[in-house]
Amino acid sequence: MSEYVDQTAPGGSVGLVEKKFFTFAAPPHPLTVESGLSIGPVTLAYETYGALSPRKDNAVLVLHALTGDSHAAGYYDASDPKPGWWDSMIGPGKGIDTGAVFVICANVLGGCMGSTGPGSINPATGAPYGLEFPVVTIGDMVAAQKALVDHLGITRLLAVVGGSMGGMQVLEWSVRYPDMVRGAVSLASTTKHSALAIAFNEVARQAIMADPNWRGGDYYAHPEKPDTGLAVARMIGHITYLSDEAMRAKFDRRLQDRCDISFNFEADFQVESYLRHQGKKFVDRFDANSFLYVTKAADYFNLENAHGGGSAVSAFAKARCAYLVVSFTSDWLYPTYQSKAMVQAMKKNGLDVSFVEIKADWGHDAFLLRNPRLSAIIERFLDRMRQTARAETPDTPDTGEAKAGG
Amino acid sequence: MSEYVDQTAPGGSVGLVEKKFFTFAAPPHPLTVESGLSIGPVTLAYETYGALSPRKDNAVLVLHALTGDSHAAGYYDASDPKPGWWDSMIGPGKGIDTGAVFVICANVLGGCMGSTGPGSINPATGAPYGLEFPVVTIGDMVAAQKALVDHLGITRLLAVVGGSMGGMQVLEWSVRYPDMVRGAVSLASTTKHSALAIAFNEVARQAIMADPNWRGGDYYAHPEKPDTGLAVARMIGHITYLSDEAMRAKFDRRLQDRCDISFNFEADFQVESYLRHQGKKFVDRFDANSFLYVTKAADYFNLENAHGGGSAVSAFAKARCAYLVVSFTSDWLYPTYQSKAMVQAMKKNGLDVSFVEIKADWGHDAFLLRNPRLSAIIERFLDRMRQTARAETPDTPDTGEAKAGG
Repeated sequence: MSEYVDQTAPGGSVGLVEKKFFTFAAPPHPLTVESGLSIGPVTLAYETYGALSPRKDNAVLVLHALTGDSHAAGYYDASDPKPGWWDSMIGPGKGIDTGAVFVICANVLGGCMGSTGPGSINPATGAPYGLEFPVVTIGDMVAAQKALVDHLGITRLLAVVGGSMGGMQVLEWSVRYPDMVRGAVSLASTTKHSALAIAFNEVARQAIMADPNWRGGDYYAHPEKPDTGLAVARMIGHITYLSDEAMRAKFDRRLQDRCDISFNFEADFQVESYLRHQGKKFVDRFDANSFLYVTKAADYFNLENAHGGGSAVSAFAKARCAYLVVSFTSDWLYPTYQSKAMVQAMKKNGLDVSFVEIKADWGHDAFLLRNPRLSAIIERFLDRMRQTARAETPDTPDTGEAKAGG
Repeated sequence: MSEYVDQTAPGGSVGLVEKKFFTFAAPPHPLTVESGLSIGPVTLAYETYGALSPRKDNAVLVLHALTGDSHAAGYYDASDPKPGWWDSMIGPGKGIDTGAVFVICANVLGGCMGSTGPGSINPATGAPYGLEFPVVTIGDMVAAQKALVDHLGITRLLAVVGGSMGGMQVLEWSVRYPDMVRGAVSLASTTKHSALAIAFNEVARQAIMADPNWRGGDYYAHPEKPDTGLAVARMIGHITYLSDEAMRAKFDRRLQDRCDISFNFEADFQVESYLRHQGKKFVDRFDANSFLYVTKAADYFNLENAHGGGSAVSAFAKARCAYLVVSFTSDWLYPTYQSKAMVQAMKKNGLDVSFVEIKADWGHDAFLLRNPRLSAIIERFLDRMRQTARAETPDTPDTGEAKAGG
């Protein structure tokens, strides 16, 4: 675990930030999603950090994983106990250096942290959508993000960056809107969700749908929510985010607040207590239906089918960006071989690809944890993208690129 | 997957078999379990195949895994669609050759397939135990098995053989009753349940206990059983029994009975359909409370603490048997390093140990699947145990050892 010795991120904080909202696709021009259904209006909750350069060529779109949100860095209030979910990576002088780039992060379509999702009010009925909300895909999420990027007046993103389901969005962006992406950073991700990953998501969904309080997705008007089902779903997820090694290091067989086993069904072991805690905590911040929708979107993700007629090489033939692909040795949810396969397909298209497998014992979660090596790799990649951008328009001075902080 | 080309087991069937019952520990002499509580009478459901030799030195005790039962081989009725759970291994001319050895297999204490468990009638109340049943350990299961072996007049077992939780019982037997075990075969097992394995069991238990029909374990008198919770628990289990490779080979992203994704929450993919089917099938044969008890017994298993003051080397200092330890390359529930650790501890005690890591893509389930190499390894080990037994009493002819079948 030597790569994690430095838990104090150097560099500064983006400071106080604000959640903003962008609404589009109002009827009579709704968003038609891949299933063929339409939805509108659509709102995306988003945040931005740093300053957009006058040339608008320094924007980095950060894409969150399954249960993430737009709050990637900084604090809403000086009293917040914790900053955004990727504060170790985003800030002045950090891997994604807000002294040099303009960061955008939006909550996904189908989410529950401010963007339109199954818990939003369906204008046709005046009640929450529930399962009337169309099943959305990674492609639909990306299409909604493009509307936001257009709205911000950005024609080409310096980079799209994300891990896990965020990485799927990165890959989708790179082939769906190739002219809009200069660099693409995929961390701990895959071009198509494996049977194993689908299996875990399906069991999690079954746990939610088995909860009588789920009521076929129509629970919003009831005081009881499908909290027990959602907690079990989250516990399943948390197992997949760690690894055997990580669990040994973190918990092993240590007991929780007791000297001996209980000989009953309470949480004897720390790992049990940890999972129960994660489950309970999650239900306070996440909507059960949204969990169904985002996991289904991940399960449906198959870049090869959607863009390459079943071939990864054909899919990446559409791409025009430079790629940075990163995998982690102990990630068994999206193992290195899946990253290597996409790298091969990218290279067969003659694309500019960098690939790094980082030795990390923390399992899939490694992409989210502070890691000086990962920060340095991403920083170098973004620096290179900025140089490329400058080289294309060498005569225009760019005041937005002066380094701050760090 | 080359080791599985031969799915037709050579050798014969043990034919029609019968479930028998052995009852002991009737009050006023109940069985005191490790928690300190007492229980009695205790019944074990068991089966035997082959003939016990006159010297009673050819008995092989087969120990089942989490949700197994006494029905390891043969058929109860000529119309049975499937034989016992390890029929590929047990029979005349098979790895455990019933032409040469006498096989005993009993359902574990705490189980629900005929042995006393939480669904049995508590004589003190006249109602099912439910959670009044004491939490039992692998040691308690083995103590109950010893009563059965004593009852059969066997003073020393030729071998104890089992995989997964059955392997834990094997290891427990070997150090708890060292004089009664000549050979011990541990397949895909561990000396102590890891945090990862505990985590999966705990989430499965939470899924059961979250089901309102579970009613604190007191559901036996109600028509609705905690079936949805138990089904989710089983689905979680089934994920851990396979591997990423196995799931790709078996399912990949193939759709189930449809040409395209559904854009709803039905089972789109074969892997989803498979898991739902396994979950539904399981609730017909298994008791939810028993699932809680057997998983807890596995989680509590720590041979090193129970017999070695925290040291595996000290624990195996008590052993006097020969060991065969087998692990499987793609088993991530009880990975090879755990088998290697026990082998090291056995060797430090100068014990007779054979260790084989079998290349198999099927994950933890590999120990249960027909595998000619595994059969040959076990056959050779048992042959050697029989030779050792003969060498100790060379003057007595043994009519029970003539090979039949094969």
